[in-house]
Amino acid sequence: MEQPTQPRTGIPAAELAARRERLQEHVRAEGLSGYVLFGADYIRYFTGLNFLATERPVVVAQAVGGEPAVFVPDFELERVRAETAFERVESYPEYPGVQHPMLLLSRLLADLGIRGSIGADSDGYPGILGYRGRSLSDAAESAVLPLAPVIEAMMMCKSEAEIGLIRESARWCELAHRLLQEYSRPGATETEASLRAGMEATLAMIAALGDDYGQQGSQDGAAAGYRGQIGPRSAWAHAVAHNIELRAGDVLVSETSAPVWGYNAELERAMIIGAPTDEMRRLFDHTVAVQQVAFAALRPGVTCSDVDAAVMEYLEDHRLLGHWRQHTGHAIGLRNHEAPFLDLGDHTVIEPGMVFTVEPGLYAADLGGFRHSDTVAVTPDGIEILTDYPSDIESLTIPA
Amino acid sequence: MEQPTQPRTGIPAAELAARRERLQEHVRAEGLSGYVLFGADYIRYFTGLNFLATERPVVVAQAVGGEPAVFVPDFELERVRAETAFERVESYPEYPGVQHPMLLLSRLLADLGIRGSIGADSDGYPGILGYRGRSLSDAAESAVLPLAPVIEAMMMCKSEAEIGLIRESARWCELAHRLLQEYSRPGATETEASLRAGMEATLAMIAALGDDYGQQGSQDGAAAGYRGQIGPRSAWAHAVAHNIELRAGDVLVSETSAPVWGYNAELERAMIIGAPTDEMRRLFDHTVAVQQVAFAALRPGVTCSDVDAAVMEYLEDHRLLGHWRQHTGHAIGLRNHEAPFLDLGDHTVIEPGMVFTVEPGLYAADLGGFRHSDTVAVTPDGIEILTDYPSDIESLTIPA
Repeated sequence: MEQPTQPRTGIPAAELAARRERLQEHVRAEGLSGYVLFGADYIRYFTGLNFLATERPVVVAQAVGGEPAVFVPDFELERVRAETAFERVESYPEYPGVQHPMLLLSRLLADLGIRGSIGADSDGYPGILGYRGRSLSDAAESAVLPLAPVIEAMMMCKSEAEIGLIRESARWCELAHRLLQEYSRPGATETEASLRAGMEATLAMIAALGDDYGQQGSQDGAAAGYRGQIGPRSAWAHAVAHNIELRAGDVLVSETSAPVWGYNAELERAMIIGAPTDEMRRLFDHTVAVQQVAFAALRPGVTCSDVDAAVMEYLEDHRLLGHWRQHTGHAIGLRNHEAPFLDLGDHTVIEPGMVFTVEPGLYAADLGGFRHSDTVAVTPDGIEILTDYPSDIESLTIPA
Repeated sequence: MEQPTQPRTGIPAAELAARRERLQEHVRAEGLSGYVLFGADYIRYFTGLNFLATERPVVVAQAVGGEPAVFVPDFELERVRAETAFERVESYPEYPGVQHPMLLLSRLLADLGIRGSIGADSDGYPGILGYRGRSLSDAAESAVLPLAPVIEAMMMCKSEAEIGLIRESARWCELAHRLLQEYSRPGATETEASLRAGMEATLAMIAALGDDYGQQGSQDGAAAGYRGQIGPRSAWAHAVAHNIELRAGDVLVSETSAPVWGYNAELERAMIIGAPTDEMRRLFDHTVAVQQVAFAALRPGVTCSDVDAAVMEYLEDHRLLGHWRQHTGHAIGLRNHEAPFLDLGDHTVIEPGMVFTVEPGLYAADLGGFRHSDTVAVTPDGIEILTDYPSDIESLTIPA
């Protein structure tokens, strides 16, 4: 068979191999026979495999000292051989099938020498989209040690390659946001503005990157919108969209997305349509100032809690606690939210390579929400802000 | 406080209440104190609540004989009060927070009288987006009985209201597909064609429905694309997109999506750019014929396996087994795939009200895939096809 060309995953193959080796070291140290991965994000993290997760399990397994094997439905065989570097690709006919995939997986694991004590991200395939099946411990007659905590800890510190992809994502979030801001005029609806911005930004992304950013659906690219955070609803930090018409006097909170090989930056801005009132200006200016407080507090050696505490102190000093609704931010990477969290209750020590959103916001019922979210990478002595977009009220006031 | 207007959820409030009552009956019969729901799809099914599921748990709980309560992060309080009919809305400050949400949830459950033996869709909040926490059984010091199987069984048979929403979804899948077909010309890429079709179809959907279809993101509406199923890659049933340029001679397999209050229809078509070769025509004609075989086999009283077996018999009779890659179809509703599956290994008895995709396909390496997917509702004596789109090769040949 023809040797497949090196698959493109955005992350160098050597780095993917090094990640697997770190996981192997843990598995070896725990005295386990190997590891099994069921989660799509984890499989992408360790192997680069990009696939549509459904009720049909896709599983990666590697015995201590062995090579990684992938277990897929039959219809993925040709694609996985063509688009990945797995030396061993095994398959099952269908889910649920005459023989359940977990039965066939347990035979494969035995053949790989993975039995007795196994590390796994979950004890069987999660019950998504109607999937049902035996647990891994039951099917493989083995003890299963949870690996999710150690994997989550590995994923917290990003490599240069990962930060490079998040930086690239930020470029396209910025473009989508510029276009969203341009198309957000009184009389436009959030859906019109969002569709126009997303279409133009995605076509520009493709013109620049070709298909070299790891699409899954045909439309995947850059997106920007409001998710209903318009007017008083912008005070609802997790609103849902209602194709709301934009009007003069509205406060807006935006959101963007532009995954590059699965890696996400986040860029959000408070904006105002027409001349801001004094109260809008007051809350807006504090939003800008408190984000600077968070930037200044965020560096290696302090805890996530320390950063959130600095924000809370600012809010308390300025009698703004009544406008608080959310913690300061969250880590981001292959998932658009991930641990650790810039939260009073998260005592994780911040290390270089961690990537966070920094988004302390102020919210006022009947008026709206004010939140700027930027994505930052922790450096040896502070942070690098990966998103580049104006934060001042003049730049973010939309003509009425 | 002002009485909120009846929230719009697509499903009548009385039907949501009846669903909860059925679940209550089960919980009562099992001798449990109440139920707890952590899954976003299940919460939407029983309450109509539409929310962005993140690492911050949203939980619905109801004691036997009590009213349903919802437990949300603080920042969701105002929205949930305004957009839902819950009489009791409780909240927690943040995740992970100084006090973990599971601790506060366990106190709420005790206050509701839910303790001792509890039914739940999962034993705690699933570990999404970096969430970690104690299991429900641990936090509430209770025995937890899994409810997911009984809930999945309830969800299998759709009401008239649900089928109405899926029928509405089908209308917009059809429009998106017509536009996709129109924009899929040699030289266009899958992303261009998909973005244009999705934007136009979504704007038309909004013009017709207003915002009355339960958006979550600003761009949500109708979509159509190929997900890389273009040329020989169309033989890869779960390909991923690569912004592939369409060329004369390509075989295509499309996909569509247009959730209406969360409910999905599915419409997919095999198409050919330019004059089909004899082999393309042969496989295309068999695709049309074998879908008819599945339609004819699908009726109340037979099993899912029987339907797939009828398809396999056709393939065997026509020496087409080498072109098989996937089972005949899957149920569809609030999830775009759900149980049961039209699969040899699924012995669920088909009942009126079930809704399935019917999509037996034929696949040939180096040539491509041929798959028409239609969404059908099971009636007392057969099926109603909810999607309405041509299936013949003349209608699905794109000018080269």
